[in-house]
Amino acid sequence: MIRQRLLAEFLATGLLLVTVVGSGIMAERLSDGNDAVALLANTLATVGGLYVLIEVFGSISGAHMNPAVSAVMAARGELPKALLPAYIVFQLAGAVCGAWLANAMFDLPILELSTKVRAGAGQWLGEIVATAGLLLVVLRAPASRVAVMVAAYIGAAYWFTSSTSFANPAAAFGRMFSDSFAGISPGDVPAFVVAQVIGAALGATIHKLLGKPHV
Amino acid sequence: MIRQRLLAEFLATGLLLVTVVGSGIMAERLSDGNDAVALLANTLATVGGLYVLIEVFGSISGAHMNPAVSAVMAARGELPKALLPAYIVFQLAGAVCGAWLANAMFDLPILELSTKVRAGAGQWLGEIVATAGLLLVVLRAPASRVAVMVAAYIGAAYWFTSSTSFANPAAAFGRMFSDSFAGISPGDVPAFVVAQVIGAALGATIHKLLGKPHV
Amino acid sequence: MIRQRLLAEFLATGLLLVTVVGSGIMAERLSDGNDAVALLANTLATVGGLYVLIEVFGSISGAHMNPAVSAVMAARGELPKALLPAYIVFQLAGAVCGAWLANAMFDLPILELSTKVRAGAGQWLGEIVATAGLLLVVLRAPASRVAVMVAAYIGAAYWFTSSTSFANPAAAFGRMFSDSFAGISPGDVPAFVVAQVIGAALGATIHKLLGKPHV
Amino acid sequence: MIRQRLLAEFLATGLLLVTVVGSGIMAERLSDGNDAVALLANTLATVGGLYVLIEVFGSISGAHMNPAVSAVMAARGELPKALLPAYIVFQLAGAVCGAWLANAMFDLPILELSTKVRAGAGQWLGEIVATAGLLLVVLRAPASRVAVMVAAYIGAAYWFTSSTSFANPAAAFGRMFSDSFAGISPGDVPAFVVAQVIGAALGATIHKLLGKPHV
Repeated sequence: MIRQRLLAEFLATGLLLVTVVGSGIMAERLSDGNDAVALLANTLATVGGLYVLIEVFGSISGAHMNPAVSAVMAARGELPKALLPAYIVFQLAGAVCGAWLANAMFDLPILELSTKVRAGAGQWLGEIVATAGLLLVVLRAPASRVAVMVAAYIGAAYWFTSSTSFANPAAAFGRMFSDSFAGISPGDVPAFVVAQVIGAALGATIHKLLGKPHV
Repeated sequence: MIRQRLLAEFLATGLLLVTVVGSGIMAERLSDGNDAVALLANTLATVGGLYVLIEVFGSISGAHMNPAVSAVMAARGELPKALLPAYIVFQLAGAVCGAWLANAMFDLPILELSTKVRAGAGQWLGEIVATAGLLLVVLRAPASRVAVMVAAYIGAAYWFTSSTSFANPAAAFGRMFSDSFAGISPGDVPAFVVAQVIGAALGATIHKLLGKPHV
Repeated sequence: MIRQRLLAEFLATGLLLVTVVGSGIMAERLSDGNDAVALLANTLATVGGLYVLIEVFGSISGAHMNPAVSAVMAARGELPKALLPAYIVFQLAGAVCGAWLANAMFDLPILELSTKVRAGAGQWLGEIVATAGLLLVVLRAPASRVAVMVAAYIGAAYWFTSSTSFANPAAAFGRMFSDSFAGISPGDVPAFVVAQVIGAALGATIHKLLGKPHV
Repeated sequence: MIRQRLLAEFLATGLLLVTVVGSGIMAERLSDGNDAVALLANTLATVGGLYVLIEVFGSISGAHMNPAVSAVMAARGELPKALLPAYIVFQLAGAVCGAWLANAMFDLPILELSTKVRAGAGQWLGEIVATAGLLLVVLRAPASRVAVMVAAYIGAAYWFTSSTSFANPAAAFGRMFSDSFAGISPGDVPAFVVAQVIGAALGATIHKLLGKPHV
């Protein structure tokens, strides 16, 4: 059963990266420099993919696909603490394999590194906001609606944050390996991850302040 | 518990403005003068954000995020009348903070005022229609579907009203503080608010005329 | 109660036309000649609006908003036959008022007639297909999902039929009064209505051939 | 009852091809060479159409519309093996008739063959990924959500796979008969079908490895 949970995290995170990176490459190729249309397509693909992945894998592993989510779940006792390191390892491995699979499908060099600069105080603030919001949604959503709510949230956050809302250290890690619209240059990843950790803690704190739902 | 309700209205209205203003700035930057694509992106972000905010905060404060909605709810006895002034204060404060946070994320001057003119009989009629429709939806939606219905309604109304459907005095107030695609010049806000109040009263009246659902 | 049903058909059909015509005008103005983007915006507004209108008015009048649907419902005994003429009158009146309200919101002459040619065997076949499909969806959808299913169907049919899927004599009637992207020249309406009637009969026939759902 | 199941597969597959091909033609005509906008429209029409077709026909025939899905269902004992050949025949016949109906609606020669090249290792890998994912979704989705999940999945896969995700031998067969944006040249169909069969087997295998949902 633990093997199935780790397989689920590996596959789900991998397919999430296939979705984000693959649709980013397709959008960039078709949009002829129209970045708004490209991000629109990238957003809709991510929303559909995220929704399906959480529905399919949620009942096996929780479908975290995200070390920041797993860490908060472990801190709250909803994920056995002993499983946290393995969850993160399989998420990171899945993320890299997903980016490689996207590169292979689009006839790109399988091994490449992103040159896309994503940095600056504005974008770091964007990642804090994005990840805080994500944790708030994950922690407050009823189980039957968590897939729809997370997908809708990320779709909105792609546009309302200046960083296009990675909100996920595994996604940042995997997207280093795609030199596309969806990539992030390796040197810019650490600051993004720091911002995501701060955001996750902030989101969990706001969740506590709000207390239990009254209904 | 009252503190949590007010915190919820502050956060929800703030995040609504982050969504509307942030996605407006992002859309304007990426769309290269293609206003239809920009409004499409702004619309989809707003639909996703509104849906999630109502689901997350609805069970705490009702997730009104809108003084016109709160006023109608107070008039109907569904919000204690004593709470109405505090609701409105926290909604307005949240709206301003949300616009400021969006400005900060996008490396804009945090304090700026909109220069975007939104005026004329057509747009005021648009706000009356938009707000009447919103109240009709809010008052007739079953609790389990109110988030989806309000989000779908506002998404449509962004396009079918000439004013792009603010339908919310707090949104108009907050959007004064963004000199972007999503802004509204301060001098144009009072007429919008008057139209919204008329629309809210009209919506509540139509709701009464229609009577109870037969099912 | 009959008065409330007729009021509901009047308002629902009126607001449907506001949605279709208003978003058509907005899309045309913003899209700068990019017809695909304009139809995309018009589609999304229609999908959101239709969903909300069926949810809001369905439990009062059935939210037909469409003489072809009402006629089939009367033939099947699901609408009292004596009510059919009044339903159609209120639907047509609502449609015209909706187009006028859209014109007023967008500072256009309230009274105008469309010059948009929509004719030819291909488009008439399109209306037959569109209306047959609509009736099939209406007749087979469970009550709890009819709003989502009709909205999704019409959104798809805007694109997969050559006529952009009016599928509704009241919509064709109202759209005569808008000289915009969403209009239809008065001389082209009768052939569209004939095609819609044929399509409605075809859809009802296929529904019978398919028999009851097995689940 | 068997006649109704086969009629349902014929109609559902036919209408799926009308949706995919018709919206492809419309998108190509309106988009003026902007392929990203065309694929966006084609995607949204397909998502809406697929959702409705599965809801409408699912309770009669399962709404497979896809020989690869029917074959896996037969192998698992969820479709009587004796019915499999007839299912496939009616799916293929429906697919061709659907393409012809789309051509007729858009005033194109009813009989035409696609000249659109779709080939290469990247696209074949894309079809394997697309079909594996589709089978995983079909096999793991609860009955009440299968329509939404399949539609969302295909919408995402149109963008994240390099082949725009046919994932269906009947769709590949029917799309040969449309010389449009949505077509596929006949010589390229066999390799797509081989990739789809491999993908279907892969998806069924991953489904077994993941075991039962824990919830």
